[in-house]
Amino acid sequence: MTRSQLVQQIQKKKSYLCVGLDTDITKIPKHLLQETDPVFAFNKAIIDATKDLCVSYKINTAFYEALGVKGWEALEKTVNYIPAEHFKIADAKRGDIGNTSSQYAKAFFETLNFDSLTVAPYMGEDSIKPFLEYKGKWAIVLGLTSNKGAKDFELQKIVSENGYEHLRAEMLYEKVLKTVSAWGNTDNLMFVVGATQGEEFVNIRAIIPDHFLLVPGVGAQGGSLKEISERAMIKDNPSNAQCGILVNVSRAIIFASGKEDFAEQARIIAREYQAEMASYLPF
Amino acid sequence: MTRSQLVQQIQKKKSYLCVGLDTDITKIPKHLLQETDPVFAFNKAIIDATKDLCVSYKINTAFYEALGVKGWEALEKTVNYIPAEHFKIADAKRGDIGNTSSQYAKAFFETLNFDSLTVAPYMGEDSIKPFLEYKGKWAIVLGLTSNKGAKDFELQKIVSENGYEHLRAEMLYEKVLKTVSAWGNTDNLMFVVGATQGEEFVNIRAIIPDHFLLVPGVGAQGGSLKEISERAMIKDNPSNAQCGILVNVSRAIIFASGKEDFAEQARIIAREYQAEMASYLPF
Repeated sequence: MTRSQLVQQIQKKKSYLCVGLDTDITKIPKHLLQETDPVFAFNKAIIDATKDLCVSYKINTAFYEALGVKGWEALEKTVNYIPAEHFKIADAKRGDIGNTSSQYAKAFFETLNFDSLTVAPYMGEDSIKPFLEYKGKWAIVLGLTSNKGAKDFELQKIVSENGYEHLRAEMLYEKVLKTVSAWGNTDNLMFVVGATQGEEFVNIRAIIPDHFLLVPGVGAQGGSLKEISERAMIKDNPSNAQCGILVNVSRAIIFASGKEDFAEQARIIAREYQAEMASYLPF
Repeated sequence: MTRSQLVQQIQKKKSYLCVGLDTDITKIPKHLLQETDPVFAFNKAIIDATKDLCVSYKINTAFYEALGVKGWEALEKTVNYIPAEHFKIADAKRGDIGNTSSQYAKAFFETLNFDSLTVAPYMGEDSIKPFLEYKGKWAIVLGLTSNKGAKDFELQKIVSENGYEHLRAEMLYEKVLKTVSAWGNTDNLMFVVGATQGEEFVNIRAIIPDHFLLVPGVGAQGGSLKEISERAMIKDNPSNAQCGILVNVSRAIIFASGKEDFAEQARIIAREYQAEMASYLPF
């Protein structure tokens, strides 16, 4: 999916909601366990109930891999079931030496029909480049994540290229945003920035004014939709008209109810998010 | 597998060889493509031909994921086929927020019977801890990798905790080794250090004298077995008697021949590596 196709969907639906399919088989309603493929049955119902309210679905591969071959089957069925108009994210946090990253790109962009894949930046340029070579596909690189562990390395100060004398307090995640953004463009690169990192959004927009951000951490992890929407959609920037953020909500939507009404309850919560988003959008 | 069990195997076989099953279906001998599961048929023959010469097998998940559900089936069959005496590594480079890393741990340590998993450190403590909670299982955390991209972030200088005045030229990967080693111990944590990073091994052993290192990059990537064996097995260190390194060779062994004699040729190369390793071991 191209950037303009994604923006069109956001404008049409007045939503920048991404629904996260972190489908934990131990948390889905018990009546679904009788189905041949409980995880897919759950996802199908969630997609049917929310597809007009969101522009994207994010599949967290860990929950599928935990089930082995059956999980990978459910993943494949799910990505094939998501309508073409939705931006499909494999939240897989991959990244390896060049020839291995090429295989991951093949796995998620050819064998499976994802539009994008989350990628860890630790191993540098050749670990990320293979994901940028597919037309209409995206690498979504970890910038500043939503978890407590972000402080361990991402927020550590790094020595800038000016050397010791003109030392700037540049953090590792800033270095990642600056360095990685030069390897691709705003049509094949997005960055993950956690919703819990509210104060950093202004700084992040100064470094990458035009890139789409994938923002997890709203809902169960406690990030504020209002705060990040105000800070990440900079009013006086041309990218503003394109929204520029996808906000992911997983557990708060898909596990809104643990009973037979799970899909209806998911729809109610998704609609609340969509309505709030419509109020923040400038169009 | 515990550390002492691994060391026993190394002592018994006079080998610290790990055979990397980077089984690229486009590179395996053509006659195998008639098999129901060509990838598993290839792996089975390689394992049969090399199992007395190596102490470990490393499965690079990317090559299996590239084949979709069939690939995941081949992966499962392969890990089940590897003898119990071998240390089984899932080279998957996973790592995510805590509740997601727990699912990856479940995937590789419970659903699949791996002894260990490679983990990317970017997201910090809660992304790694879930892998350390399984008795007899290991997290193998990326330290300094073998690829060119290592220079982009891993080798960047970071500001030490002493602050600007007493600035040390500490590199990100050193910070990772120091920080992560405090989260586990020498019985549940190893680190990946690429064989192409020869000059850094002395420094690395100074930071983590007793941790096992997983060393890829020998063979196709050009690292020297002699050099890393001399530098990583410090003579006057107690860990020396335990060897302390696993050296992975993938392509140079498994694709030694592209013909029907692939397994015999793989055995010949594996034996050369084992014989060279025996000459470097102090026992």
